[in-house]
Amino acid sequence: MATTLTSLVNHQVRLAARPMGLPTAANWQFTEEAVAEPVEGGVLAKVLALSLDPAMRGWMNEGKSYIPPVGIGEVVASKNPAFAVGDTVTGSPGVQEYWAVAADQFKRGGLAKIDLRAGSVTQWLNVLGMPGMTGYFGLMDVGQPKPGETVVISGAAGAVGQTVGQIAKIKGCRVVGIAGGPAKCEWVVKELGFDACIDYKNGSVREGLKQHCPGGVDIYFDNVGGDILDDVLARLNRKARIIICGAISQYNNTKPVQGPKNYLSLLVNRARMEGIVVFDYADRYHLAIAEMAGYLKDGRMKSKEDVVEGGVAAFPAALLKLFSGENFGKLVLKLADR
Amino acid sequence: MATTLTSLVNHQVRLAARPMGLPTAANWQFTEEAVAEPVEGGVLAKVLALSLDPAMRGWMNEGKSYIPPVGIGEVVASKNPAFAVGDTVTGSPGVQEYWAVAADQFKRGGLAKIDLRAGSVTQWLNVLGMPGMTGYFGLMDVGQPKPGETVVISGAAGAVGQTVGQIAKIKGCRVVGIAGGPAKCEWVVKELGFDACIDYKNGSVREGLKQHCPGGVDIYFDNVGGDILDDVLARLNRKARIIICGAISQYNNTKPVQGPKNYLSLLVNRARMEGIVVFDYADRYHLAIAEMAGYLKDGRMKSKEDVVEGGVAAFPAALLKLFSGENFGKLVLKLADR
Repeated sequence: MATTLTSLVNHQVRLAARPMGLPTAANWQFTEEAVAEPVEGGVLAKVLALSLDPAMRGWMNEGKSYIPPVGIGEVVASKNPAFAVGDTVTGSPGVQEYWAVAADQFKRGGLAKIDLRAGSVTQWLNVLGMPGMTGYFGLMDVGQPKPGETVVISGAAGAVGQTVGQIAKIKGCRVVGIAGGPAKCEWVVKELGFDACIDYKNGSVREGLKQHCPGGVDIYFDNVGGDILDDVLARLNRKARIIICGAISQYNNTKPVQGPKNYLSLLVNRARMEGIVVFDYADRYHLAIAEMAGYLKDGRMKSKEDVVEGGVAAFPAALLKLFSGENFGKLVLKLADR
Repeated sequence: MATTLTSLVNHQVRLAARPMGLPTAANWQFTEEAVAEPVEGGVLAKVLALSLDPAMRGWMNEGKSYIPPVGIGEVVASKNPAFAVGDTVTGSPGVQEYWAVAADQFKRGGLAKIDLRAGSVTQWLNVLGMPGMTGYFGLMDVGQPKPGETVVISGAAGAVGQTVGQIAKIKGCRVVGIAGGPAKCEWVVKELGFDACIDYKNGSVREGLKQHCPGGVDIYFDNVGGDILDDVLARLNRKARIIICGAISQYNNTKPVQGPKNYLSLLVNRARMEGIVVFDYADRYHLAIAEMAGYLKDGRMKSKEDVVEGGVAAFPAALLKLFSGENFGKLVLKLADR
């Protein structure tokens, strides 16, 4: 293997310029470099798949961003006894075909082995990966759902949303999604078992909430922000919990973020709005993964990934699907077969 | 006593028309009626003092309001064995000189005896009353302060703010107030012992926070909303708690409430924003009152009331002091001596 490595070319996509608003072709640069042997104590992996996430938009901005990009690879050369050729690993490869990890990067979440018996490569980027962990700990730890409560989820057909809704159903809640377009709404209800789904692209979210949450909203898992957050704030029950997971409606704004005009509903209803960042729960990932792998196995949980092919060259266009709402399920860029 | 009662006249102030923006003279109607003997099981009290509160603005609007006005009276006639002539009582008298309470109103917080050995009439409307309870439970239950944490309080010289800041100091926190004008700021620091106070009327709150909270903000007790809420959001520490107690900057708005543009700081900082309504803690008032009466007695807590005289006729003008920020300490309308 080692002899052939250095003949390989690593194709990469790099940020050429920070975007204003939606990223365009001009923001990206295609580069290539020779693949090198791993350094002493390091590992070289072939990248199998990359997770494309709304939070990627944040990484492109100036300043500190709080979640690094995630992907999965297969170890093709190792100078570290903890990793063997053929191991499947997850970490932060960047947008490239080969991924060299030095030993000093392992500790800060740089590289971890995963077990494909618990789920497929794409499921490890979805239900068993960051989106699944975000949904699990956001709902369970921040939301603290009780059986019979009404849970509303925006971005319901997205990676986090689909997990949140299915866990909430398993925990005995009434679950109402908000998603864009009839296909996603139908899928969320018919395939994932949500009680209802409001199509924000065809009709009023406010009216939909009145109709589908006649008893008010106990938990709102917010992935979108903007007007939809205000609509849900207006329907809160006493002691309601809002989990702030994201605000995709605001990420490409070139004007200031739209603050929730109805935030005083928190006061009247003694309600709570709280942010979740998945890394705070890293020491309990293994527990959530075990629970979710069980649900995947017994069929109580389904997982849908929107897999884009075409190599690293397909990255810029694939990313835009997130912001148009075009992706259906967890968006994954596939780079190689295992 | 009973023979003289019916010769008394009860002067009243009633809402004549719902205000748009700040209430004006046209919103009020002065009425009078004869004082009547209490009904069977009921009580008649002479009103000693009324609490004037920002939340009163909410009561004037259409729709449900969540906190009834509070006052203190002296029982002058009783047909109920639980109350004797001479008892001091607190409840919701409305803006009038005499206050008849029927037996069926007692249960829903209509009437409760208070002990003037724990504090004066005006202190019972301040530290030992609703503002004090709001501050105590908002800070302690929602904020959960830990020694060494930095607590920021807007409306710091107001009824709730002064209580919050002094409790936070007693609990070992670093306390920074925000108030309007040098007199209030000086009082808050020199008399109440806050570590610093930012004068929002003379200088930038954002700069003041940078200067006085170099280690960030762990707890923000918000009485004002608006731009100041955004300024504090920008300085939050990890796992910070924002207690939403009010938004006086927004109550007289005729345009939509200004939502906090920086609310995504909750996400990045895994922080929490939660509303407090004091009535949820009614079963623990007696504990908080006992604790605070102790602090008043040993001098660790001070209390300042801004007492307006002039009878019910002074009510409309007195109320406006709240919204101009003119009052200094808990605003109280005194109607009679004990």
